[in-house]
Amino acid sequence: MSRREHITVMGGGLVGCLMSLYLGKKGYKVDLYERKPDLRKAYKEYGRSINLALSDRGWKALNGIGIGDEIRKVAIPMYGRMIHDLQGKLSFQPYGKEGQAIYSVSRGGLNIALLDLVEAEHNITLHFSKQCERVDLKTNEVHLRDSATGEESVIHADRLFGVDGAYSMVRYSMQKTERFDFSQCYLNYGYKELTIKPGPFGRWLLEKEALHIWPRGNFMMIALPNLNGSFTCTLFYPYEGHESFANLKTESDVKRFFKKQFPDAMPLMPNLVDEFFKNPVGDLVTIRCFPWAFQDKVLLLGDASHGIVPFYGQGMNAGFEDCTVFNDLLNEHTGDWHTIFDKFQKIRKPDTDAMADLAIYNFLEMRDKVADPRFLLQKKIESKISTLYPEHWLPLYSMVTFSDISYAQAKAAGERQEQIMAQIMPQIQSEADFDKPGVQNLIRQQILGNDDLVKSSTKP
Amino acid sequence: MSRREHITVMGGGLVGCLMSLYLGKKGYKVDLYERKPDLRKAYKEYGRSINLALSDRGWKALNGIGIGDEIRKVAIPMYGRMIHDLQGKLSFQPYGKEGQAIYSVSRGGLNIALLDLVEAEHNITLHFSKQCERVDLKTNEVHLRDSATGEESVIHADRLFGVDGAYSMVRYSMQKTERFDFSQCYLNYGYKELTIKPGPFGRWLLEKEALHIWPRGNFMMIALPNLNGSFTCTLFYPYEGHESFANLKTESDVKRFFKKQFPDAMPLMPNLVDEFFKNPVGDLVTIRCFPWAFQDKVLLLGDASHGIVPFYGQGMNAGFEDCTVFNDLLNEHTGDWHTIFDKFQKIRKPDTDAMADLAIYNFLEMRDKVADPRFLLQKKIESKISTLYPEHWLPLYSMVTFSDISYAQAKAAGERQEQIMAQIMPQIQSEADFDKPGVQNLIRQQILGNDDLVKSSTKP
Repeated sequence: MSRREHITVMGGGLVGCLMSLYLGKKGYKVDLYERKPDLRKAYKEYGRSINLALSDRGWKALNGIGIGDEIRKVAIPMYGRMIHDLQGKLSFQPYGKEGQAIYSVSRGGLNIALLDLVEAEHNITLHFSKQCERVDLKTNEVHLRDSATGEESVIHADRLFGVDGAYSMVRYSMQKTERFDFSQCYLNYGYKELTIKPGPFGRWLLEKEALHIWPRGNFMMIALPNLNGSFTCTLFYPYEGHESFANLKTESDVKRFFKKQFPDAMPLMPNLVDEFFKNPVGDLVTIRCFPWAFQDKVLLLGDASHGIVPFYGQGMNAGFEDCTVFNDLLNEHTGDWHTIFDKFQKIRKPDTDAMADLAIYNFLEMRDKVADPRFLLQKKIESKISTLYPEHWLPLYSMVTFSDISYAQAKAAGERQEQIMAQIMPQIQSEADFDKPGVQNLIRQQILGNDDLVKSSTKP
Repeated sequence: MSRREHITVMGGGLVGCLMSLYLGKKGYKVDLYERKPDLRKAYKEYGRSINLALSDRGWKALNGIGIGDEIRKVAIPMYGRMIHDLQGKLSFQPYGKEGQAIYSVSRGGLNIALLDLVEAEHNITLHFSKQCERVDLKTNEVHLRDSATGEESVIHADRLFGVDGAYSMVRYSMQKTERFDFSQCYLNYGYKELTIKPGPFGRWLLEKEALHIWPRGNFMMIALPNLNGSFTCTLFYPYEGHESFANLKTESDVKRFFKKQFPDAMPLMPNLVDEFFKNPVGDLVTIRCFPWAFQDKVLLLGDASHGIVPFYGQGMNAGFEDCTVFNDLLNEHTGDWHTIFDKFQKIRKPDTDAMADLAIYNFLEMRDKVADPRFLLQKKIESKISTLYPEHWLPLYSMVTFSDISYAQAKAAGERQEQIMAQIMPQIQSEADFDKPGVQNLIRQQILGNDDLVKSSTKP
């Protein structure tokens, strides 16, 4: 099947590639422009590499074009959080039910896999090293600059998809249009990537199938497993203040800090000091804007329209879910781009706003609450409630991660659950208390009297 | 006195002019660039002319350079709100105590007066029709384009003050610097200016010394007096929906709407239909950003750093208060620009954030609550409390308008007062109930038991 409509996708990252594949497979002619050189030839060019955690929404979108199985081969399941305390003592907190996991994948590896698929799709033409300078929205002309040669060129787009990330130049051009709401908001924290080396024979030196967290109150380090036996660690730490990147100036500052805070990890990081001073500190930004569409000409997707902080592992998953939602609308309203664009932005805006809030909240949970025995007890009780009332109670983390309940519904249900837990927890000092008749009555009463709780079987 | 420091002020509006005057009078060499032609020669060029209401913070800043008295001559005091109901029935609500007023001034007239003062100040050089295209923050070079000739030029600024309004190009250049928080957020309402003509012999056809409001629930019209006997009316109305600008398409739509909603005003507006279709619909935007300073090189002030909606009449007053606060810091830390800029942004950011919230809240109050008898009764009771406990209770409107208590303190105190009123009002059905012993006891107990209430004598 071939369609005459000519689609321009700006941005060859994860979401740009996946969106192009969805469109190309439908028969649209797609030109995909990426500002960087071909990742497959110049892997070093790509700085940011927070390991990614694929969860259900991401898999659904990958499955939608039949590539889930292929990606799964290079993904490592993580069945829960492994908490490291100050003495190196470990405790494991499962993410969901038996067998449920999020999957560690390499951003670069996944992008390369998607680029290979894009290249094999005859409807899609790839253009690398093409930086979008600006979009003339009146004519839908995109001004490009070749980052290798400096050459400037202008292309015309029937439809332009701005999938060019948190610092989107397509969005930047839209920012001056009438009544364009926009915000970019930074955390006072930065992140730095470090490495735990593989052991002998490529063995993993920490538990492989977990996401490791060193929660330290107002900061934390995490680590995700890689296929080669290493772990990618990320330190999230304030930019300024007493405990901050600004105060880790010398080699001995860094060593003292890691020795005190991460005594079990430090011996596994032989290049710690080198990496610490070589690797940049990355920003943590939340991007919100509206509208996402300009007439039926331009549409923003992924981080360009809803950049979020990484703490819920949902940035990529939300972007991939954009593709699923868009594809459904494209099937329903083929050819009516105005309706497709408008419905898309109206459906996705409240969901991605909710996810942005949840992502910020989860930083607090990861860096602080996971080390609090009361919080852990509450999680266990919630898990028991969910087992007892599976139709009425799916924990928030599971709604976000292991379902495709809309993010906004998940957030609202999570808030109601939190209120109920605030009623229940004062009665509970141990897991055993869950079985007390008084507690059981209270739970039944709270849950069955509350019709607004999202049921695990609910679909948006 | 002359100083060698060369200061560039970008923006010749109200705050840019006043800031230049403060700096020029201190002996700094100032170059003031304005993107439009000289207002005094080309008055028609200036579209926006929402009448402005000068209040205490504005007067304080004008008095600070000795020009308050001169401006007062062309200002009309407005002692309260005059509410017009659907039948044209009037009711008057004083703004403050006897003699307290806000002052209607013409934006253009005030700007002209300030430009004349700027021109007379030998340390300041005025440059018109110079559009800032961008700022190179590394070198502090400002790229200008002459809007008459198209000629481009580059100037170097020792210190650059970005006072170039809500759509500031100086801020636009800062938006891409590291971790620059920024948001622009529009209301779904627009505004349109219309005119009530002067009566015979230049008489005012409505009460002159009041701000007129036609509150209509989810929209409103207001009118402020001009010196020539006319009133400038502003209709605040949704952009879209059933009742909206989008649905006022024909002459008869407009006439029907005004006849129904503003029956007493319509006969005073002979050019209504012409004006309605000629005048543009203006946007209502809130701008927030941080930091306001780039090193000790660039500082944003006024709407460029904190654009707010006009409903509290504090946009210009907040900008003028920037000048007062900046001048105090300049006196205290002369020459130490880093400290001045940094302290300025840290002092003003929470205050202008609070004011932005209050301004949005006041739209609701003006368009809806002022027509609610219970709300009016509450205002009267508050006024009695304030008279009885002048050291402990200044109504929110008075804190904002008739004091220089910091906006953030005013907002916080207003919220506590609102909580107290929520305790008291259920006991009150009429003004006379205020004197009941039970009510008096309750008030005394609430007020004297609450140390956090801002006292009218408190100064920030």
